[in-house]
Parts: sequence; C-alpha cells; structure tokens
Amino acid sequence: MEIVVIGGGAAGLKAAARIRRLNDEAVITVIEAGKYPSVSRCGLPFYVGGLLQEPRNLLETTYGAVRDVNYFKKVKNIDVLVETRAVEIDREKRSVKIVRGDREDELNYDYLILATGSKPVNPPVEGLNEDVEGIVHLHSIEDAEKIFDVWEEDAENAVIIGAGLIGMECAEALHNLDMNVTVVEIMDHVLPSLLDEEVACMVESHVREKGINLMTSSKVEKVLNDGERVTGVVVNGKEIEAELVVVAAGVKPNVELAEKAGIELGETGAIKVNERMQTSDKNIYAGGDCVECRHIITGKAVYTPMGSVANKHGRVIADNICGINSTFPGVLGTAIFRIFGMNVGRTGLCEKEVENAVVGCVAGTDRFHFLPEHRPIRIKLIADSSGRIVGCQAAGTGAIDKRLDIAVSAITMGAKASDISNFDLAYAPPFSTAIDLIIAAANMIRNKLDGIAECISAADFVKMLKSDEKFTVIDVRTEKEFKSRSIIDDRVVNIPLSEIRERIDEIPDEVITICQVGARSYEAARFLVQNGRKARVVDGGYAFLQPMLEKYGLKFGERAD
Amino acid sequence: MEIVVIGGGAAGLKAAARIRRLNDEAVITVIEAGKYPSVSRCGLPFYVGGLLQEPRNLLETTYGAVRDVNYFKKVKNIDVLVETRAVEIDREKRSVKIVRGDREDELNYDYLILATGSKPVNPPVEGLNEDVEGIVHLHSIEDAEKIFDVWEEDAENAVIIGAGLIGMECAEALHNLDMNVTVVEIMDHVLPSLLDEEVACMVESHVREKGINLMTSSKVEKVLNDGERVTGVVVNGKEIEAELVVVAAGVKPNVELAEKAGIELGETGAIKVNERMQTSDKNIYAGGDCVECRHIITGKAVYTPMGSVANKHGRVIADNICGINSTFPGVLGTAIFRIFGMNVGRTGLCEKEVENAVVGCVAGTDRFHFLPEHRPIRIKLIADSSGRIVGCQAAGTGAIDKRLDIAVSAITMGAKASDISNFDLAYAPPFSTAIDLIIAAANMIRNKLDGIAECISAADFVKMLKSDEKFTVIDVRTEKEFKSRSIIDDRVVNIPLSEIRERIDEIPDEVITICQVGARSYEAARFLVQNGRKARVVDGGYAFLQPMLEKYGLKFGERAD
Repeated sequence: MEIVVIGGGAAGLKAAARIRRLNDEAVITVIEAGKYPSVSRCGLPFYVGGLLQEPRNLLETTYGAVRDVNYFKKVKNIDVLVETRAVEIDREKRSVKIVRGDREDELNYDYLILATGSKPVNPPVEGLNEDVEGIVHLHSIEDAEKIFDVWEEDAENAVIIGAGLIGMECAEALHNLDMNVTVVEIMDHVLPSLLDEEVACMVESHVREKGINLMTSSKVEKVLNDGERVTGVVVNGKEIEAELVVVAAGVKPNVELAEKAGIELGETGAIKVNERMQTSDKNIYAGGDCVECRHIITGKAVYTPMGSVANKHGRVIADNICGINSTFPGVLGTAIFRIFGMNVGRTGLCEKEVENAVVGCVAGTDRFHFLPEHRPIRIKLIADSSGRIVGCQAAGTGAIDKRLDIAVSAITMGAKASDISNFDLAYAPPFSTAIDLIIAAANMIRNKLDGIAECISAADFVKMLKSDEKFTVIDVRTEKEFKSRSIIDDRVVNIPLSEIRERIDEIPDEVITICQVGARSYEAARFLVQNGRKARVVDGGYAFLQPMLEKYGLKFGERAD
Repeated sequence: MEIVVIGGGAAGLKAAARIRRLNDEAVITVIEAGKYPSVSRCGLPFYVGGLLQEPRNLLETTYGAVRDVNYFKKVKNIDVLVETRAVEIDREKRSVKIVRGDREDELNYDYLILATGSKPVNPPVEGLNEDVEGIVHLHSIEDAEKIFDVWEEDAENAVIIGAGLIGMECAEALHNLDMNVTVVEIMDHVLPSLLDEEVACMVESHVREKGINLMTSSKVEKVLNDGERVTGVVVNGKEIEAELVVVAAGVKPNVELAEKAGIELGETGAIKVNERMQTSDKNIYAGGDCVECRHIITGKAVYTPMGSVANKHGRVIADNICGINSTFPGVLGTAIFRIFGMNVGRTGLCEKEVENAVVGCVAGTDRFHFLPEHRPIRIKLIADSSGRIVGCQAAGTGAIDKRLDIAVSAITMGAKASDISNFDLAYAPPFSTAIDLIIAAANMIRNKLDGIAECISAADFVKMLKSDEKFTVIDVRTEKEFKSRSIIDDRVVNIPLSEIRERIDEIPDEVITICQVGARSYEAARFLVQNGRKARVVDGGYAFLQPMLEKYGLKFGERAD
C-alpha cells in the first residue's frame, strides 16, 4: 500500500506515524514544503518571547530526540521530503507531482492524505506588502526568525494587526523583548470571534495594565515604509511609529491544490470531509488546518484550526485507511491562551450566538481561599433555555483550564446544568473549593431557570449607568469594601448584607443589587423579593463589571463620602 | 414553617442557608454540639501543618467575615445553637429534645434535617484509650489543638494508625512540625480502598523519599503508656517510641440519634435516603457524612463521606423542602489529596473492582515539555470491556486534578473511551500537550479493545521479574537512559527504538518491551508483532513500574555493563 501525505504538520505526521504502527508494509511518503517536519506552531509565540532557546526545541520529543528527516526514516520508516512542494494531483492516475529545487517527480498513491494546513490572511490594507522589511506574520519558524532579525536591528516599536489568539500571544512575546507594542483590532473587543464582550474586557483591562497599547474598533488604514523598511502605520487617521508590523488577522485553509484537483470544498472555504475525514474522492483523506469540522452543538460546518484537533484527525485518517472503524464527531471551537499570567479560554457557543441563553456568571478562587496559592477565576457558563450547557468562557490567573475542560466534557456528552451541579468533582483544599466554581455557575443557571434569580448582565448594567435613567443600586458589600473600590455614581448606595434585614425600610420598591462576585447580592435579592421588592442582581458582580466600567469610561474607585 | 437542623457542618448549614433564600418566613434552628458552626474539616491537616495561623481561618468567608453564631443570625436569620446536643427525636410529636449545659429544651419541627456527620473509627487495639494523653484523632478543631498541645511539650515521635486520606495528610502536617513520623497500615498498600497497587506504590515511594517511616501490611498490636501519657506502640512485635499517636483508621456515620428514633439505616450502616435525600420518615431529611449514597456506576449503596458531596446534599434537601424538584444522582467516590507536593486522586471504580477491565496507563507531562513549568503526571484510566469509562487514578507533581475531573464528567455522563479520544479539550502549551494525556489514555484503551496493543501490567511484570522464569525484555530507550536507570536483571537487554528495525534478527520470538512511559515500547511492539514476534508492552513503562520495583526489593539503577 502506497500512502502519500502532503504536509508535515500535526495531522499529516500523526496519520503517517499511526499508519506505520498499523501497517508495517505500507510505503509512506510525506511531502513538506518547509525546512522542518513536525513544527509545533503553537509554540512559536513562546519562541519569540524568549522561553525557548532554539527552534530545535519545537521539534524535540519528550526524551530529547529531534524529530527530523533522519528520525522519521530510522524510527518510523517514513520518508519525509522537506523543501518539497506538491504541485498537482492527478486523481485519475492517483499520482502527485512534486517539485524539489529544480527537480520534478511523481509519486503514486493508493491513499492520499491532504494535510496542507493554513496560511495567514492578509487584510486589504494599503502598503501591506510582505516584501517590505519589517512586515511579518507569525506562522512559521522562518517568520519567528524574521522577527528576531528586525528586533536585533534595535526595533523599538511594534504594531500587531489583529487581536485574535496569535495577535495577543505575540503582544506579550514582543513586550518581553522590551518593545513598545500596539495592537489594533477592527472589532469592538479583543478575541471578537471567541469571547463575549464582558470576558473580552477582562483581557483588555489586563493587557492595558501591563503596558500594551490596545486599540479596539480601530482600523489600520495604511502601512508606511521608507522604500525598504516599514516605518509606521496609520490608524484612525493618526500615524504610529513602527519598525515591526506583525500581521495577525487570522488564518485561512490552504486549499489551492485540493481545489485545482476538483476536490469539494465546504461552505467555509476549507476542504469538506465526512466523519471518516474522507474528501469527495474516496482515496483522498484530509485533516488538520485545511479542513472544516462539524460543530458538535449546531451541526454546522465551522473552520477552527487547532493543533489538538489536527492530531485527532490524523488518528481517524490512519484508522480508516487501515480498516479500523473510527469517526471524528466534530469540535466545540475550544481555545485557550495565557497572556501576562492571565489564563483565558472558551468553548462551545458564545452567549451572543444562543437564542434565549441562560448564563451563570460567577467569580471566586480556584482553590480554598485559606491556602496561599489560591488565585481568582471568573467563569461564564452558558445554557440554552432547556438548561443544556452550550458554552463556557473563563478568565483569571488561576486554573481556568480545568473548569473549561469540565465544560468541554459536559457539553460533548449533552449535560444539563443539573448534571454539572452534581458532578462528583475532585475536592481537597489545594485543588478546589468545596463547591467548585463551575458547579456554582451551573447552580446559578438552575436558579434562573427555576425563576428564583433575576439578573442583569454587566453589559446591560453599564448601559443603565451611562444613561440618565433614575434607579437605585444597593451595593451589599461591607462599608470598607464599598469605600475603597466602587462605582462613583449617586444612584449607588451601600447597605451591607449584614444590615439589610434591619434596614429594609430604606429600600425602595425596585432595586439592583451588586457585590463582589454575585453571591451576597443574590442572597440580598432573595430577601428583598420575598419582602415585596423587585430586585435584580448584577450578574457576576464587580468581578464581571469592573473591566467594563473601565472600557466605557465610567468612574470607579475610592469614594470620598 | 419550622425547620430544625441537627449538625452545623457543610450539609446542615448549606441546607439551612438555601432554605432561607427560598423561604424568608421559615423558622430555622441549627443544633451544633461543638463550639463552632461550619468548620471546614478538610482544612484541619493544613491547620496542623502550619499553613493556617488560626482555627478562625477555617470559619471565614472569602471576604473575611467569620461565620459564627452572630453571622448566621444577622445575615441569614438562622439560629445556630452551639455546644448543644440533640438527644432525642419524637417523630410522633415532631419534636427534638436538646440539651445545652444543664438546660433541656424541646424544638418542634415541620421538617427535620439530620446532618450529624461522622465520627472516627477506633480500631480494636490494646491500650488505645482516648483518656491517655497523646492519643488523638484529627476530626475537629479541638483535636487539632490537642495535637499542638502535645507537640508544644516537645513531642518528637508520632505514629499514625491508618494510611487513608486523613492519615497521609496528617503525616505531612506532622513532618512539617519536625516530628519523626511513622505511618502504620494494616493492608498491603496505602489508600487501600481508593487506589490500585501500582498507583499506591507511587505514593509510598514518594513519602518514603521524604522521610516518612511507612509500614504497610503491619498491625499496631498495642499502644503503650506510662499511666498518663502515651509512650509508644508495638508494631509487628517491635516497640516504636511515640509521644503522639494519631488514630486515622477512617470514619463511620454518626447515626445513634437516627437509629434510636427508628429511622431506617442502609446496608453500609449509614442513614438510608431516597434520591430526594428523604429518610424513611417523610418529614425527616438527611445529608452529608451521616448518609449513604448510591454509586453512579454500580447502583450500589456506598459510604463516601466528603465535604463537596455534603454541600450538594444540602442544596437538594433545601429544594425539596421548599417545593423545588431536585434529586441527587449519586457519587463516584472521587477523592484527591496532596502529599509533599505530589497530587494523587481517584474516581469511580478501581481496576480490581471491574471484571475484564481494560486500562490505559500513561505517563508524561501536564503541559508542553518545552515550558519550564511542565510537571510529570501518570494516569490510569479504567474501562469495562465495552469501552465505557468506569474509573481513573492519577498521581504526579503536575495538574492531575484537571484530568481527574475530565474523567469524573465523562464517567457521570456515560462516556466511552472513544468519546474522550475526541473531546475538544482546551489546548495551548501552558495548559496541556497537543494530545492531552487523558486522551492518550483513552486511545490506549481503544488500542487494546481493537486488539492492536497487548500489555502486561506493572504488577504482573514484577511477579515475572521475581520468578526464575526465562524471558526476554527489550528496553527500547536510548543507551544513555538504559545505562543510567534500568532494571538490573540479565533478562533485560537494550535495543533502542531507533535501532530496532536494523536489529530485528537479534530479537527472539517472544518478548516484552519497555520504555519510560510506554509510547516507544508500544511502537516497537507494533513493529515486532507485524514481523512475526509475540510482543507485550509493560503498561505505563518505567513510570508505573519503578515504584513497584522499589517496593518489592528488585534492583534498579545504574548498569555497569
């Protein structure tokens, strides 16, 4: 059996390696256009940020072997042809035409695997020309090396176009190289396709505090150069100096070869595959960043390139080629990243994508608060109107990844909020609180579904604060908390939770309650509602509200009164 | 509505607080025998170990309020009667007789909630008499204070009876107080009811390395005293000096009151409840450490006292009393702890409890190995013969809690190995590897079910090594790895994976392959099997084997040859 794999990234090499394990007779050839097979692209920002000494680190196995051409041949009997391009697929003849330097060749296949990956999107900006020195992407080791070259020539100012995953990680990496970093995002918040606004605001507030110049709702209108090198960009009509411009406007599937061969593309523009990762040609499989996946919740085709998904594709492809029954059920669009010590992640649908969504916004610590290693986390769990969990977003310096992965498992298996409520999660003080925050979030969703919690989102509350509307907000935190950090607005008064019972007569018919994380304000609201008031709780309390106050220029801080 | 709660721990107070939120009119009284309500007992070992300055820390909310009698009255309008004992329940009259000092009283109820918790088990050992100074449990703040009293009198030697959760956590706490600590366990490994042997051995090896004198398969035959204070214990016929003896032989449900009132107990000896947490008397609910739970996998009654479960019970009880439909589905017996920096946890069934279990033993890092914060973890995932996941055990200095909670979510929702394989878990280098280890474990289970991986467990392999049987083991690690740390046994030879193809002729018809974590030996086995050999892989490699070699006195280390 002859197998040709086009693309030496995660999907292609995983498929090749597993085919070898399943079939020692197969002749396996991998065609890779770049210099190196098996580069972990997810590690590139860490390489740029100085955490890795050598690009070689990105190729190493855990036991220190370098996964180069020689390794694949000797250990796995797989031929990897690097710096080789596949230029044409002849589906009739089942052959691929390849070019290496000026040598042309043809490889026959019984099965062809397309793992051609993705390429960076170039937004239509005047002057954005890759031939100009100092304009780079961050898509390969070569790109990372280009960034180092520019930096070594004493570049001080960097502009990153796009505040997506790569853009944000790159911002920290360049900041670590002591550059002045500006990130320009055309949408109204960072990570626009991944996060709802209030969670995005947590990231924005955090990176601004660390010294990143973040410009949302802003457009790079022009990239300037002196004929050779980039010198700056024009954003919203103003010039910003820059010796380095990183284009991080997302990636698109690399499908030219497939398209030319008449292989069907899907509605996202990526290669269409069935659940066995088979293309419209039954002898051609495809996986990784060049294919589209089915969204597990909506059933719709989505394009969510991710190294972890590519590895799963590789396994499914190998199984099917070798006669093992294996299918890929789809993705949730899970994504996570760390920026300046803050962990941020998401899975499933955003609130804005769900009709009649019911959300649980909670904040607290990732482990018992009496242990010194506890850290704050904020979770937004999203359910549909039946209580089925459909999404989760989280941010904080603590272990959000655990809660996100619990949500991933739950969503994949069709769990409802009431299921998560009773998950027998691992509890001891160094690992969680007795009621883990993901359970608290599920309980809050149940409270809303049961009609015993009425909330207002931080976003809607900000709109009220910005208006001239008359209303009363009761901040039920302690006097000390209230005086040191709260909204500076006459419509906000302080009645600590411990005084609310005795001071019930001071409270008008309709109020909004707020506290630090939402627990005390919920308790106050329950008391008030049962005592004839209409009371709504600010969802997630100040933990969710504060970053939005900053963004919208609302006053927050110490109170003189 | 009058509510009486007996027991001011997690279940009782959670129920009381939620009833208050759901019904502001209810008259709620909590009876607590101890000095403090709401003590986090899970925090006691940390208090003893010096991580907490004050027992008060165990009562604090996250915002610093102390949850004392005054707090419950003022904030929640709940009467907590401390140092008060409930002595009799009159189910006919619906009243509880209580005693405070020399005052007797009677409280009427519409609903009674039994949250009487647990009490420590006293094993039948000669001389084990609580009146002797220096013999303590670790079940209450008072116990912790007793330990401090003994320690302040310059006690240097401590013996802990029982190597369960509390015993192990206590061992570290006392070690932190600079005591010589001996732990005596009657069963053949630590955590006998929680872990399979190879995982228990990881813990044993770790705590021994830290200086704990651990004695398994050993019995405390006698506790010695000088008429006033404890002076030592006799273990296996030998005397061990001790000024402190901590009895950590487990807990049992505190059910005397319930039993006297004729409330039905279950087969475990704990109070029997239905899924609404209702006892055999419909006006009496029970939750927390005094009840038995249904095991989610087996459906059988189990007794698994745990603070996180007690909180869930409290919520379900409150809901049902207040007319909200709510059920508790059961437990998986999840448990986790940290000892000398090693995290250890388990959920579901042990391998030894599952007929025809299929396990995936994997070892690796908790995040990408090029980042300095990566740490080793070892996972044993357990499936039944249909591939349904039924248990998980994990140990390591890295983030095992995340993988355990993924398993908890998966098991609860009925996931199979093939489901976990494709979970779209959150991936970026600071959080996991591209193929997370829990996915690798699920894939290994699938490989076994598909008949493409034949393994031998570390335990069975140790038995072979101890025998005189003739066999060949091929260690496929690098020569450097092999020379520096491997089994010292002539039956073990080194052929690195990278040489196995060219040296196939040296390999006999039947072999066992081994490597560090099981990946290379699996790859080698696949090659050998397809080239006419019978090859089995040591499950989990040296990562699982090494602690067992130590335990069974088999030679391991640098090789001279």
